[in-house]
Amino acid sequence: MGIVVPLNPDKEQKPSVEALIRLTKPGMGQVNDLILKMAGANVDMIPEIADYLISSGGKRLRPMLTLAAADMCGYEGDGHVKLAACVEFMHTATLLHDDVVDESDMRRGKKSARMVWGNQASVLVGDYLLGQSFRMMVEVGSLEALDILSTASSVIAEGEVMQLVAAKNTATTEDEYLEVIRAKTAALFSAAAEVGPVLAKAPQAAKSAFRSYGTNLGLAFQLIDDALDYGGSAADLGKDIGDDLREGKITLPVVLSYRRGSDADRAFFDRVLMEGDVQDGDLETAIATMKQLDALKDTVERASHYGAVAKDALAAFPDSNMKKSLLETVDFCIYRGH
Amino acid sequence: MGIVVPLNPDKEQKPSVEALIRLTKPGMGQVNDLILKMAGANVDMIPEIADYLISSGGKRLRPMLTLAAADMCGYEGDGHVKLAACVEFMHTATLLHDDVVDESDMRRGKKSARMVWGNQASVLVGDYLLGQSFRMMVEVGSLEALDILSTASSVIAEGEVMQLVAAKNTATTEDEYLEVIRAKTAALFSAAAEVGPVLAKAPQAAKSAFRSYGTNLGLAFQLIDDALDYGGSAADLGKDIGDDLREGKITLPVVLSYRRGSDADRAFFDRVLMEGDVQDGDLETAIATMKQLDALKDTVERASHYGAVAKDALAAFPDSNMKKSLLETVDFCIYRGH
Repeated sequence: MGIVVPLNPDKEQKPSVEALIRLTKPGMGQVNDLILKMAGANVDMIPEIADYLISSGGKRLRPMLTLAAADMCGYEGDGHVKLAACVEFMHTATLLHDDVVDESDMRRGKKSARMVWGNQASVLVGDYLLGQSFRMMVEVGSLEALDILSTASSVIAEGEVMQLVAAKNTATTEDEYLEVIRAKTAALFSAAAEVGPVLAKAPQAAKSAFRSYGTNLGLAFQLIDDALDYGGSAADLGKDIGDDLREGKITLPVVLSYRRGSDADRAFFDRVLMEGDVQDGDLETAIATMKQLDALKDTVERASHYGAVAKDALAAFPDSNMKKSLLETVDFCIYRGH
Repeated sequence: MGIVVPLNPDKEQKPSVEALIRLTKPGMGQVNDLILKMAGANVDMIPEIADYLISSGGKRLRPMLTLAAADMCGYEGDGHVKLAACVEFMHTATLLHDDVVDESDMRRGKKSARMVWGNQASVLVGDYLLGQSFRMMVEVGSLEALDILSTASSVIAEGEVMQLVAAKNTATTEDEYLEVIRAKTAALFSAAAEVGPVLAKAPQAAKSAFRSYGTNLGLAFQLIDDALDYGGSAADLGKDIGDDLREGKITLPVVLSYRRGSDADRAFFDRVLMEGDVQDGDLETAIATMKQLDALKDTVERASHYGAVAKDALAAFPDSNMKKSLLETVDFCIYRGH
């Protein structure tokens, strides 16, 4: 009688971040409190915008990486909570500025902040969050962590400029594109993970391992995001599919399709992405072309490659629930793309 | 025979920053080299924009303050050169973002960067310069200087948001306005000056003195700038007079005129600044009203007050050419407004 619930359902379940969320829950509670406190300001508009973005349902993967990495390296202080909040502030500042730069109307299924408060406030509140982020880092007092996070901050901005320059250029190569996402996305994942062992004063090998885990997870994450923009469901992603096409963004599915396709395919992508002449049915055409040329499948394939590198980066660490959750997080990121 | 040149022309000359420029010249040469090096990037657009702004003829008052303060406190290392470059980068990043927020077409008599490269690049290159600025600070390795500069960074952004919220609000009080400029302008002058004694490991009294000098010089500088926007010549300022009026910016001349004026005067400022309905002849009307109500004269008067406080802040330091040049710099800033 009754339903048989498997005691160890792992193998039958889809990969998920639930384990990571559960294991970092106490620390993330403190991170959230700190975020709310540090988003406060003498001007009401700042916490309003910060709350809007921060409570808008991102998974907070980056700060969880900081907590998990510090934990796996035996860190016992509270600096990891502050650095995790820094990482989330840096990410939020980037989102605010990105939406202005991309002229995005939506973000995670809600109106973007710039549509609610305007471009001006989005630029300035982004600057404020970045400033607060640096103040928190300085409080922690680790010059090594400061070096890692401040370097990430300028690398991210450099990556965004690279993307802006590459924008609408359908001749972008796969390597050039990888250089962009290595800077604009992977650098923050990498820094978020590396500061954990840095705080724990772990050996160089541990720092390098987490740096590599973060970089490769970030690359995989971004590539899957790119694929989802042409194939995911709006409900899953929380954003409309086809945004990248409409914004003229060159991502890996486009890079692959452009190289593999016919002259007619190239003419299509040139019209839509370079000239910005987007017509009804273009998204469907793009998706059909990408499927026919295996561009979406191979984008996920490339992501799996980086995912595998990320997992191997942690191979030398002894088994633990935290390690297991970080490995599963990689699978989860890849799985979203299937 | 011949022309008699007075040997000590100080009393007969207009106050100038030439002495400060001369005394900080060797250090500023290194600052300029470092600025060019750190503005370099893997994307050509970044140094292009940075050079455009950095070579566009600002006086570089802020980095000179850092060098002068370090020198007066007997500092002998080279960290002051790096921190001076940081301060200039922070300032340049703020200019880039300000022009986007204010939708300014001109900056120091040239097209603003956003008019040449667009808003998108201005936002992102500003972020990049801020990131590079933090990297240089971290290299210097003084946590106390990092604390001062990172706090300034978030205070500046907070001040900009305050200004955005106060924008077009003609009912802004003088105290509210002072709070805005204390954050958006004086905080960087203050930090620029304070990190000098910090690097030199000078006693707390010296740090406080330079902090106070910077803050009050910054307030005076901004108030004179505000007055000049209604009375200076475009040639001197390198920007068109009347910018603040056209952009609906509330500055002290407006605050004073609005309070002192008649109902008709208030209706005028409400139409122009709150409603943004700027008509031909409005600038002339505004200037005439401000003159009649002594609003420009008293803005300069207020600036003189802060200038006097700035000079007294350095009173306890022994006489030196550097000290004299810093005192003259205060007079120079005020003198511009007459």
